[in-house]
Amino acid sequence: MMRIDIISVVPALMQSFFEHSICKRASQAGLVSIHLHDLHDYSSKKFRQVDDYPFGGGAGMVIAVEPLSTCLDHLMAERTYQDIIFLTPDGQTFQQGLANQLSLSENLLFICGHYKGIDERIREKYVTREISIGDYVLSGGEIAAAVCADAIIRLIPGAIGDESSALTDSFQDGLLAPPVYTRPASFKGMDVPEVLLSGHEKKIEAWRHEQSIKRTQDRRPDLLQ
Amino acid sequence: MMRIDIISVVPALMQSFFEHSICKRASQAGLVSIHLHDLHDYSSKKFRQVDDYPFGGGAGMVIAVEPLSTCLDHLMAERTYQDIIFLTPDGQTFQQGLANQLSLSENLLFICGHYKGIDERIREKYVTREISIGDYVLSGGEIAAAVCADAIIRLIPGAIGDESSALTDSFQDGLLAPPVYTRPASFKGMDVPEVLLSGHEKKIEAWRHEQSIKRTQDRRPDLLQ
Repeated sequence: MMRIDIISVVPALMQSFFEHSICKRASQAGLVSIHLHDLHDYSSKKFRQVDDYPFGGGAGMVIAVEPLSTCLDHLMAERTYQDIIFLTPDGQTFQQGLANQLSLSENLLFICGHYKGIDERIREKYVTREISIGDYVLSGGEIAAAVCADAIIRLIPGAIGDESSALTDSFQDGLLAPPVYTRPASFKGMDVPEVLLSGHEKKIEAWRHEQSIKRTQDRRPDLLQ
Repeated sequence: MMRIDIISVVPALMQSFFEHSICKRASQAGLVSIHLHDLHDYSSKKFRQVDDYPFGGGAGMVIAVEPLSTCLDHLMAERTYQDIIFLTPDGQTFQQGLANQLSLSENLLFICGHYKGIDERIREKYVTREISIGDYVLSGGEIAAAVCADAIIRLIPGAIGDESSALTDSFQDGLLAPPVYTRPASFKGMDVPEVLLSGHEKKIEAWRHEQSIKRTQDRRPDLLQ
């Protein structure tokens, strides 16, 4: 069973996500266990403070080295993590290949930044991998951790009902997925492409492959290079 | 005030995201109102079913055109949306520039896919913009909607405590952010760079800019081109 630990200053933010859909199902099936840790529990300060003003001045607060270090030492004494991942806009860009790779891990530890970031010394001493889910800034790493967890967990065999479904997803074969349709065949003058109603398996497969290529050429020619 | 509507088959999945942090604060401050819509409420089927098997066969279920069409007609009759956004891996890649642009909208409508996707006819008839938050596949568009909402909402003036903080984030000036540090100045043999303790504002600024450029060159040379 895979174990995912997530350290955050607002763990409640992620709660509903892990209580629904794929993550809930995979947890109930014993495929993954997810543990949210509130960084405030590791503070030695009177009001459980975990952040402080940045050295050198400027806007925004910085998560301090002490509580994070205490929390990390505590978790790392209990088990070995394949990766200690810090979610940050300046990290390695997350993509499907990395999700595939991380889905084979036994223990993963995610650190969510918040406010202006975490003290750089934590990144130097503990973090083994820095991940960015895209070229934009979020108010914290919590949603990014949920993104990574979801992308990874759904690849664990048994997590989604029909495993072959994941194999036909976008990016798995370097192409975008073809259009999909369901009933009714005709809706307010808009009809489903004839071939999909033909029952001719080979023709359907050929049409889908052609649509995948066309869509990738139109929208993401960079994926074909 | 900005209004964001989100259509989903599992709206509860996003609940905790919007009840914490930036989104909660911005809602309470009257800067944004977020409305989650359960697609099942718009089904005409006996068991509030919203999905069906794909035409042409294959794994995964497809969200049907009828309930989505009903829901969209209903919302669009109430107000004008600047954009009707479908979250999908084959959409335009989300990045900070698009977040900046969308943060100026009055009404935004997000459609979350789930299962294998939504009927293509909805995309053709209603959707004005398709967004992918990155090159990976998630079990649904819900987390992607939370990502977009967070990135957009934090840019609304007043949403974060100190507005100048957002201006020094990664990507806003085409560079990654420099390292940050807070107290203590020395921790288990790891010291904060001297310059940050100097109190010399100009030197600190120069050091940060230099670190930003160095970090961008090392990690994301593509951003400099």
